[in-house]
Amino acid sequence: MPKVHNFSAGPGILPQEAIDNSIAALQNFAGTNLSLIEVSHRGKEFEAVLDEAVATVKELFNVPEGYSVLFLQGGASMQFCMIPYNLLDEGQTAAYVNTGVWAKKAIKEAKLFGNVNVIASSEDQNFNYIPKGWSVPSDAAYLHITSNNTIYGTQYQELPSANIPVICDMSSDIFSRPVDVSKFDMIYAGAQKNMGPAGVTLVIVKDSILGKVKRAIPSMLDYRIHIEGGSMYNTPPVFPIYVSLQTLKWVKSNGGVVAMQKRNQEKADLLYGEIDRNPLFKGTAATEDRSVMNVTFVLNDDSLNDEFMALAKQRNLSGLKGHRSVGGFRASIYNALSIESVQALVDAMQEFERMKSGAQA
Amino acid sequence: MPKVHNFSAGPGILPQEAIDNSIAALQNFAGTNLSLIEVSHRGKEFEAVLDEAVATVKELFNVPEGYSVLFLQGGASMQFCMIPYNLLDEGQTAAYVNTGVWAKKAIKEAKLFGNVNVIASSEDQNFNYIPKGWSVPSDAAYLHITSNNTIYGTQYQELPSANIPVICDMSSDIFSRPVDVSKFDMIYAGAQKNMGPAGVTLVIVKDSILGKVKRAIPSMLDYRIHIEGGSMYNTPPVFPIYVSLQTLKWVKSNGGVVAMQKRNQEKADLLYGEIDRNPLFKGTAATEDRSVMNVTFVLNDDSLNDEFMALAKQRNLSGLKGHRSVGGFRASIYNALSIESVQALVDAMQEFERMKSGAQA
Repeated sequence: MPKVHNFSAGPGILPQEAIDNSIAALQNFAGTNLSLIEVSHRGKEFEAVLDEAVATVKELFNVPEGYSVLFLQGGASMQFCMIPYNLLDEGQTAAYVNTGVWAKKAIKEAKLFGNVNVIASSEDQNFNYIPKGWSVPSDAAYLHITSNNTIYGTQYQELPSANIPVICDMSSDIFSRPVDVSKFDMIYAGAQKNMGPAGVTLVIVKDSILGKVKRAIPSMLDYRIHIEGGSMYNTPPVFPIYVSLQTLKWVKSNGGVVAMQKRNQEKADLLYGEIDRNPLFKGTAATEDRSVMNVTFVLNDDSLNDEFMALAKQRNLSGLKGHRSVGGFRASIYNALSIESVQALVDAMQEFERMKSGAQA
Repeated sequence: MPKVHNFSAGPGILPQEAIDNSIAALQNFAGTNLSLIEVSHRGKEFEAVLDEAVATVKELFNVPEGYSVLFLQGGASMQFCMIPYNLLDEGQTAAYVNTGVWAKKAIKEAKLFGNVNVIASSEDQNFNYIPKGWSVPSDAAYLHITSNNTIYGTQYQELPSANIPVICDMSSDIFSRPVDVSKFDMIYAGAQKNMGPAGVTLVIVKDSILGKVKRAIPSMLDYRIHIEGGSMYNTPPVFPIYVSLQTLKWVKSNGGVVAMQKRNQEKADLLYGEIDRNPLFKGTAATEDRSVMNVTFVLNDDSLNDEFMALAKQRNLSGLKGHRSVGGFRASIYNALSIESVQALVDAMQEFERMKSGAQA
């Protein structure tokens, strides 16, 4: 089959090795002669998978003592609700930084539980930058930020810290770079961008922040229940966890998050370099806030969009259409995407430049 | 590889055809030359999968107009919380029938939202029967029942109806027999027993019962939001939905729920027949309430348990250990299990009888 260069924003590209290992487990899981998806999650074979997944997260991110690693269902969207349910008492205020649609959704849910102080926002410029120079109210219950904004191609180059609990949605850049987990009280990520397939959500939570709100929390929404059950309070999403483990193992065997960061920076430099050089294109995100995961760019003449997309398709470049709220193009260059795929996109951009200058000549 | 007879209670056996088709989609999904788990859920290929899954549920169960079919995350356990969140206002009372651990968990969550009237229970005899002769208070917000009780091997032979909204947890017998959906206001099922792999939950809900409670509902817990989003309010669990569709198509191509019921009854008759005939064994559930999905039985002399389990293992009979609260053995004989596998278990029980009578002779 022809090689397809997969720039999908999410669910996104996974390491071929992770997919192949997962297929093997569907054929015969851990020597059981049964498929991974038709055995008990309480069997020793799957318990070993879950244990290894937790251990690999802890190893990749140097998770300190006192934190729990959970694999839950519902995506980041469920976390938008669980976070205030567990951490924001009625009458308390939480501080949120609004850097896009996903941050806004998190804000909306938090308002059902307490007060929300949006301490900074980049909505005035369609979220094409990361707000700076804001300060964190010391009496807020927590600060919530979104490390990378998939739609707009912005990313905190340096993650902020604060003297109150800091919670970070890392759905679209988890394991793309080293993170000092000790500076966060909670990190979470829907898996389907940089960590695995859709259907599982990683939560890394500092145990000591839990159990402080007065309200009763439904069992499935209570982090303490999931910690106590070791992510097995009820049947976990077996296959998504298995694929995530294969992806985490691939990260580890390819040098961990330090190597991922280097590799991602090389890919980003190559692509942003072409965007800045090629007179037909321009980037949409503020230069200093450019994401190394999602590269957003447009044609200066957007009447050429269809023509460039046709060329991309012809060259097996897939998933490049920009989000409707930004337009143009978005190349998601997650961990598993090779630099060869980025080069193929750069080649197409250069070919397009030649086609257009030829047409003008 | 040797044939393994898979009696796992859940996640349970799936049709080999469904597994094979799912592996094919992981290799190359719908001609995209990409894996099913690394493409956008908003692409036309996956939207077609979701549409077909909804249509197949409607077809298999003759779902009337006015009902929505949803594929959600979180398992039945999340439904235990979502149901009262959406349907039980503060001060209102809901009626629950307590037929086991899962019903109890549903009751526990409902109590966080309103009053619960447990109108019948079989807890007095470790849930080994289905309570009968109960009446439904006409002023209750809804009646909640559990159609099949996996742990205890009990099942409503005839599903009750009522003049108030009826909600049924069918996690362990969905699509095992025809159901008159019009008699229910909501049916739900965690997929991982009779419908698919872990990680997706089917909800069939009558639209007109929604939107009546006064409380604010977080987006991810609000059925109306999921209906409006067509199960795509956020990224759905792509792979679990795909496998579920393959399983539903297998049910359809094998005669639908009418044929499943006939086939399941034949398997159950064969196995219960042996349990009743074989002097070493006895069933644990009340005869009139025996489940055709989960067959629970014990050895009269439970000091022989390990020996029978060793014979079962030698004959590649897998997943037969009973739940700790019942003990003995449990054969889960879901739709996908063949009568040949049941026969293999019956053969082992007869062989065990010969071994024991030989030992005594």
